Amino acid sequence: MKKFLIVLLFFFPSFKIHSQNIDKELFELSKKIVRTSLIDQKGYKWLEELCKIGSRLTGSENSYRAIEWAKQKMIEAGFDSVWLQPVMVPNWKRGNLEEAKIIKSKKYKGRKLNITAFGGSIGTDKKGITGKIIVVHDFNELKEKKDLVKGRIVLFNRPLDYGEVEPFAGYGGAVNQRTRGAIEAAKFGAISVIVRSITTKHDNVPHTGVMYYEDTIPKIPSVAIGYKDADFLTNALKDEPDLEVNIKLSCKTYPDTISYNVIGEIRGREFPDEVMIVGGHFDSWDKGCGAHDDGGGCIQSMEVLDLIKRLEIKPKRTIRCVLFIDEEQRQSGAIEYAKFAATSSQKHIAAIEADRGVFTPRGFYADTDSLTLNKLQSFLPYLSLAKVDWIRKGGSGVDVSKIKNTKALFGYVPDSQRYMDVHHSDNDTFDTVHPREFQLGSAAMTILCLLISELGI
Amino acid sequence: MKKFLIVLLFFFPSFKIHSQNIDKELFELSKKIVRTSLIDQKGYKWLEELCKIGSRLTGSENSYRAIEWAKQKMIEAGFDSVWLQPVMVPNWKRGNLEEAKIIKSKKYKGRKLNITAFGGSIGTDKKGITGKIIVVHDFNELKEKKDLVKGRIVLFNRPLDYGEVEPFAGYGGAVNQRTRGAIEAAKFGAISVIVRSITTKHDNVPHTGVMYYEDTIPKIPSVAIGYKDADFLTNALKDEPDLEVNIKLSCKTYPDTISYNVIGEIRGREFPDEVMIVGGHFDSWDKGCGAHDDGGGCIQSMEVLDLIKRLEIKPKRTIRCVLFIDEEQRQSGAIEYAKFAATSSQKHIAAIEADRGVFTPRGFYADTDSLTLNKLQSFLPYLSLAKVDWIRKGGSGVDVSKIKNTKALFGYVPDSQRYMDVHHSDNDTFDTVHPREFQLGSAAMTILCLLISELGI
Repeated sequence: MKKFLIVLLFFFPSFKIHSQNIDKELFELSKKIVRTSLIDQKGYKWLEELCKIGSRLTGSENSYRAIEWAKQKMIEAGFDSVWLQPVMVPNWKRGNLEEAKIIKSKKYKGRKLNITAFGGSIGTDKKGITGKIIVVHDFNELKEKKDLVKGRIVLFNRPLDYGEVEPFAGYGGAVNQRTRGAIEAAKFGAISVIVRSITTKHDNVPHTGVMYYEDTIPKIPSVAIGYKDADFLTNALKDEPDLEVNIKLSCKTYPDTISYNVIGEIRGREFPDEVMIVGGHFDSWDKGCGAHDDGGGCIQSMEVLDLIKRLEIKPKRTIRCVLFIDEEQRQSGAIEYAKFAATSSQKHIAAIEADRGVFTPRGFYADTDSLTLNKLQSFLPYLSLAKVDWIRKGGSGVDVSKIKNTKALFGYVPDSQRYMDVHHSDNDTFDTVHPREFQLGSAAMTILCLLISELGI
Repeated sequence: MKKFLIVLLFFFPSFKIHSQNIDKELFELSKKIVRTSLIDQKGYKWLEELCKIGSRLTGSENSYRAIEWAKQKMIEAGFDSVWLQPVMVPNWKRGNLEEAKIIKSKKYKGRKLNITAFGGSIGTDKKGITGKIIVVHDFNELKEKKDLVKGRIVLFNRPLDYGEVEPFAGYGGAVNQRTRGAIEAAKFGAISVIVRSITTKHDNVPHTGVMYYEDTIPKIPSVAIGYKDADFLTNALKDEPDLEVNIKLSCKTYPDTISYNVIGEIRGREFPDEVMIVGGHFDSWDKGCGAHDDGGGCIQSMEVLDLIKRLEIKPKRTIRCVLFIDEEQRQSGAIEYAKFAATSSQKHIAAIEADRGVFTPRGFYADTDSLTLNKLQSFLPYLSLAKVDWIRKGGSGVDVSKIKNTKALFGYVPDSQRYMDVHHSDNDTFDTVHPREFQLGSAAMTILCLLISELGI
């Protein structure tokens, strides 16, 4: 398109700001937040630095370097207090060996398969595990075929439903293969499971994520396979149902180890004991650099406080950024923080979680009562400046939802269509983050924090 | 993020569909449209084919191949009628020579500058144009410095305002340098103009676009310079204000030539003479492949009809797809179609223009009266299935706005944050189009066409 944009601008937005009770000063400040965020791109530059450190699996060396880095950044930014909250976290390590190969087949012998172990999986010995494959699509089919499962590797082959408009819904419909596949398959004597990667991108990059065992059921190795190799293997098995695959993994769960939530705050000028939280989770999987999941959400949360400092705003209430460690496995960081919150003399009035990627803002989910939701809707004229179109009832996030007795818990909702392309995989890199989309998210959350700080909830 | 997605889904959306007057059959059909569009990805595959043909500058060989291709696709898809509407279009050609170089300088002699001529610019002779540079940021500054302009090359150096939340607004604030820069500079005796690329991506890819001359004012060559090279040149000039640049261009405007709007329709089963239009512009600049601008919008418009055929819907009213030729320069295709519409015995009830890129849907602008807008709002529960959050008063688009006496003209509005990265440049390629985002746009417009066809307006 080319011109007559003047016409477009003339009609532009949306909210009749005169017909509502708008605080002019806060409205102007909100505009300034958006402009500053877009122009300075400070958070975006921070994210680049963080991504250079690398992925942040709990207990990994990188994770400690990143924790130290974040603490330093918060200190340099001049937050009123910065501290680390210790917590014991899981300590699973992938190791160097991760390999799957077709070893018995007329046509495909020697063909490697692109796999990666799920977080928490046991490894194999050096010879690995070898077996024939049985393909199933869900736990019902597994049960129907239970007599064929013993001694075999189960290929869970149900893709994320691409026809779901909401990729998170598609993910939710496929993820039990990853989380419980090893348990269900082992019940019938399977020796390992391979799970089609849960992704909207049909490349060959395997997507990891957490998997569980149950104490009473044998533990078997569990891996993701790239989408294209899942297709390949499915077709190969039609040809040669008896082909055999060997899987070698060196991953292992080590004893829990110490790690930290990183916390920084700007104290409220009037009600320092009323606290508004904004945060994400600082751990990631050891794939890509966890740019969207959830380095980006963490940096946006840090930038909320930094923008407030940069613009020399003295908020009425305390605004605190919490980078929760270990969301991906056991939420130990969130549990630890919630314990602290429950016993603190301060009141946690609200919390925002940013953990759905860092694409263009769409809205906020609010876990709150209807009366509060109504009040929150009156914030939309301010929030729309950062491309937030709605606040709806909805879930917040696994970390902040552990904090009890708030008036509202929020989940920040950016556009989601590209998120599952990158999620838990080597695709989750800095270059998939767009500076404008990212910076609008920082701005949106800053505005929401500011409004709640100044106007209460 | 990782789990507890079930919670999220439970709260999910937004519209209390029971409290409104929802047509259950149309609602189910809308869901089916979204699913089918996402899963089949037929439009996305079409767009890939189109992009392989290449860019589609009016009068170029590629443009005729693309027109033939689109006509064939519409015939193969089984539309009730498919035809070409002839129209005379501009015939500017870039030619092979396009070069800028610093030729007089202590430090920078021989340094090439990444430039590209604007559409409509005159060329130079073989030796090119050589001159010193004067830097200005707007027409006021140009006027203030008018005594320094004579015999020089004017560098218009005002970037798109990155702090504008709406990139189209940023574009609107910078584009007069491109469209009228040569006119204003020539008034004071400039020999050429160079314009900082109007873009949100700070790489070195120059962004072209249309420029104008006035008959009474000397015509001088006008080119875009890559963002990074604009920075470079600005700094170099601080060092050496008298450095000289040589520009060589072989571009030329040839006599108008014949081209075509491509039109296909599905006739209404009940009111065949009431017509709903959906369209984009089929010409592009000769950079990249015009994937977002506006190959994507054209293919989405074709897919609206194709989805209706695929799902065996027999619409009440006629739905017609128009691929307008020549939006970028003179809108001759739109003017020609509007002439036809004005004299047709059929009534054009509404029209949608898709020409803002093919990212995730956000909403529709509607150029209509308030009463109709109210009725249109009741469509939101259906449209939200394809991620459309709002219908607001706003401009439609330069092509459909030429059609008179409709009840409503719509502009389809996808997310815009990445659009100016690619606009009118070599960045506008197929790989920047995301299949899900693209397909949701097809679905959103199909649903809107269907609702207007079935429920009237």
